[in-house]
Amino acid sequence: MAGKDASSSETKKKDASSSVTKKKEPKSSAAKGKKEVKKETGLGLSYKKDENFGEWYSEVVVNGEMIEYYDISGCYILRPWAMSIWEVMQTFFDAEIKKMKIKNCYFPLFVSSGVLQKEKEHIEGFAPEVAWVTKSGDSDLEMPIAIRPTSETVMYPYFSKWIRGHRDLPLKLNQWCNVVRWEFSNPTPFIRSREFLWQEGHTAFATKEEADAEQKQIPRNSGAVFFLCYFQVLDILELYRRIYEEFLAVPVIKGKKSEHEKFAGGLYTTTVEAFVPNTGRGVQGATSHCLGQNFAKMFEINFENEKGEKAMAWQNSWAYTTRTIGVMIMVHGDDKGVVLPPKVASVQVIVVPVPYKDANTQGIFDACAATVKSLEEAGIRAEADYRDNYSPGWKYSHWELKGVPLRIEIGPKDLANNQVRAVQRDNSAKIDIPMADLTERVKEMLNNIQQNLFDIAKQKRDACIHVVHTWEEFVEALGQKKMVLAPWCDEEEVEKDVKTRTKGEMGAAKSLCTPFEQPELPEGTKCFASGKPAKKWTYWGRSY
Amino acid sequence: MAGKDASSSETKKKDASSSVTKKKEPKSSAAKGKKEVKKETGLGLSYKKDENFGEWYSEVVVNGEMIEYYDISGCYILRPWAMSIWEVMQTFFDAEIKKMKIKNCYFPLFVSSGVLQKEKEHIEGFAPEVAWVTKSGDSDLEMPIAIRPTSETVMYPYFSKWIRGHRDLPLKLNQWCNVVRWEFSNPTPFIRSREFLWQEGHTAFATKEEADAEQKQIPRNSGAVFFLCYFQVLDILELYRRIYEEFLAVPVIKGKKSEHEKFAGGLYTTTVEAFVPNTGRGVQGATSHCLGQNFAKMFEINFENEKGEKAMAWQNSWAYTTRTIGVMIMVHGDDKGVVLPPKVASVQVIVVPVPYKDANTQGIFDACAATVKSLEEAGIRAEADYRDNYSPGWKYSHWELKGVPLRIEIGPKDLANNQVRAVQRDNSAKIDIPMADLTERVKEMLNNIQQNLFDIAKQKRDACIHVVHTWEEFVEALGQKKMVLAPWCDEEEVEKDVKTRTKGEMGAAKSLCTPFEQPELPEGTKCFASGKPAKKWTYWGRSY
Repeated sequence: MAGKDASSSETKKKDASSSVTKKKEPKSSAAKGKKEVKKETGLGLSYKKDENFGEWYSEVVVNGEMIEYYDISGCYILRPWAMSIWEVMQTFFDAEIKKMKIKNCYFPLFVSSGVLQKEKEHIEGFAPEVAWVTKSGDSDLEMPIAIRPTSETVMYPYFSKWIRGHRDLPLKLNQWCNVVRWEFSNPTPFIRSREFLWQEGHTAFATKEEADAEQKQIPRNSGAVFFLCYFQVLDILELYRRIYEEFLAVPVIKGKKSEHEKFAGGLYTTTVEAFVPNTGRGVQGATSHCLGQNFAKMFEINFENEKGEKAMAWQNSWAYTTRTIGVMIMVHGDDKGVVLPPKVASVQVIVVPVPYKDANTQGIFDACAATVKSLEEAGIRAEADYRDNYSPGWKYSHWELKGVPLRIEIGPKDLANNQVRAVQRDNSAKIDIPMADLTERVKEMLNNIQQNLFDIAKQKRDACIHVVHTWEEFVEALGQKKMVLAPWCDEEEVEKDVKTRTKGEMGAAKSLCTPFEQPELPEGTKCFASGKPAKKWTYWGRSY
Repeated sequence: MAGKDASSSETKKKDASSSVTKKKEPKSSAAKGKKEVKKETGLGLSYKKDENFGEWYSEVVVNGEMIEYYDISGCYILRPWAMSIWEVMQTFFDAEIKKMKIKNCYFPLFVSSGVLQKEKEHIEGFAPEVAWVTKSGDSDLEMPIAIRPTSETVMYPYFSKWIRGHRDLPLKLNQWCNVVRWEFSNPTPFIRSREFLWQEGHTAFATKEEADAEQKQIPRNSGAVFFLCYFQVLDILELYRRIYEEFLAVPVIKGKKSEHEKFAGGLYTTTVEAFVPNTGRGVQGATSHCLGQNFAKMFEINFENEKGEKAMAWQNSWAYTTRTIGVMIMVHGDDKGVVLPPKVASVQVIVVPVPYKDANTQGIFDACAATVKSLEEAGIRAEADYRDNYSPGWKYSHWELKGVPLRIEIGPKDLANNQVRAVQRDNSAKIDIPMADLTERVKEMLNNIQQNLFDIAKQKRDACIHVVHTWEEFVEALGQKKMVLAPWCDEEEVEKDVKTRTKGEMGAAKSLCTPFEQPELPEGTKCFASGKPAKKWTYWGRSY
């Protein structure tokens, strides 16, 4: 619906960003005649986070060298500065799932339309966003072929083939790949793009517990817990929490999606939900789905169980995407640029020589090199910026814009005192460190920065949570950009009604998740929206 | 041209393979009524490598659990057993290029048609194979969008944007991704597929040497060596050689592609060429291209050099693909299945308990567990196969089919003697190892297997090389499935003529590479094909 608007706003951003990147070499003659430079350093952001969040974000991802806008709307270039963050998370997550005996594989990018359309609810969820290949060279293909928006329908015909007996289970696969969803709502770097990178895990189980549940004919959606399957859903969700909280220093809430918001075709969806205080919007951080036996039924994933009877597999699927990086930038970034948590920063410490005309320049450079060497030997990712065509001040701004957690300055005085000056990116705190204590103190500072970023983000997030009981309170809190925790009757019609009643320029509110940690719900508590008896506390808000 | 034939032969293979995979659970009642089982173990291959190489290959990649055929022709599923090999190579290569300060990034899958067609020679090379997206959901796109067949045209507009001054150079990027080439010639798992995984490196340089060369107006194609650029081309080629020779144990020849065979739009292409003795076909193993300034001209990758003058960047691009895995299987595989070189095997040692009815089964199982533990602690990738529904004999065949380099059997006699029996996959050699020497001896054996595989492959390959001087000798050698080393005049028209004159059922011969190691070329030596004065020794043959 907002297709036209979205692409024109996209174009505007692209233009803005491209003029901005040209500001990078202020002293070269090539810079002459270019657009007016904002600050002495030439590196300032034009927009402030609190004043114009959207423009600030577009500018910070480009000037921070995370993203380049691409000539196809909704597609973005992940530059090395962003890609290295993805790689840190990938290294962690890949090792963790390998411990869980999950194996990597690679299924094709393409799906035939017959297979794609096999699971009805599922395809209804994805059909409008599917990109279709219809030609190769100058020839029309016999049948259009879809590009995967997700790989359930790509993989499960082969699960059916590979799973014959109970000994073939569990089958636990994962792939790191790109997927395409040709969305028309407002594209946003990392957060909503037409192509993105993710991992998608797909697992099939047939534990005794599951088999028991099957035999007892426990009805679908009864809320019964199917043990191994359920445990794995939550084990993966815990990894997602760790990615956000331990690596990206972004607090998330674990919970379950409503029937309306769950994965199309699945049984239930668990999620880690983040929140962006500036826009008052929730962000679905990553999801781990129990698919139940729905896909197994459609794709005939049957097996012979231990008793020689035919049974059907229980399946999960789960994914996190490059969206994680966008959430991190939105939460921690400031008016100076990106702020990187040390754990994901490809450069944790940038060492800047601060020579004066009459100083021992070589001595300063040597001290910088020695500092980098010591830090690297201690397992800290450090680099020095020796460029001679930029001033120390320019370099400070440059690395602040890129979000390096800690800057070390070495000038004549530091050299004389056998010390370095360390400056934190997160709070600008400055401290002199004797060379003798260098690695120990830097490690400590990096740990503190990581913790501080999380603590402050959590404070801010928590300050945005409002508990409400009535519709009036709900609307007021929503207007104040809050994440609203409200007692709910858990009826799909009521959620649809909430959406309708809150429609407006800012987008409708929806349920974000029902948190696993439930506050007490006194008997007689009524649903904030319908007045019916409340069944649970649920988070509501506008969302990306 | 062979589109119809290719897809029908593809279908045939798929049918064959799918019936084959169903043989896997011979003892379950589900196996009843299925196709006749070839051997007692149910695991034999139907085809022999020397008798019907094509069918043997299709069967071995499927039964060895490397590949599953997919319902879209030319697309294949990389199963974990193959993916783990890709990951080993990726870990090696990624670390090596990071040492060279090459950074990973990710550019979009999609290219707009205007950009794709900017470099004329380049697009002529790729146009017939480009897959086009023309629809999303039910709507037609305003303009068709191409799926990348390679990313020169995707990336270089942004190289142009990012490179302003000489200090922005070198720019050294790499990405791990999928690409699509909708080919119509005979699809073959790993070797020729419509989608494949690769890394593609793209680098731009402006060293003093290059700048000098530029100023002196050294003409393109003059053969002048442009130092840094050229060095990097060869540094990368050396990594490709190491992947083949050190990891996959496949001997390759380093050399330069002819003008006719070089990368479309580039200046020159270097290659590592492998050879498959059974089919007498060369395989382009991986290529490292010097693009010269051709793309820089088209995409305006200009910069201000140290003297303040406008200059143009020198570029390289280089890639290796999942084809590597196919070459390895073709070279080492035998009538029992895949043969994995230890360095790339995700399971290097499989431990099989061999209990007898009256034996101490628990003792044997414990010894297996202790063996796996010791090996793992020594950094060896080991697993035990404790399944109780398969006989030891079945397990031997199963792991031989999958190509595990070393099998360890532990039976009652071994338990009594505090030893294990080790059996090599490559040559069936059996040896008893005292438990006390376990890890040391196993390491030694794995190293030997790795070396033996390479040595034998090299012997076989070398035996296929024939030196010829005349057209008659050339045709005869070609008929004997040889790789032909011949003196050549290095004229493109002559190469085209060779192609025409050798056309036939087996496909035409072409130049494979001009090896860097050139035998002596006595003055007066004539070209094997044209009779003109020869300029170099070049390898010729049929090729994948």
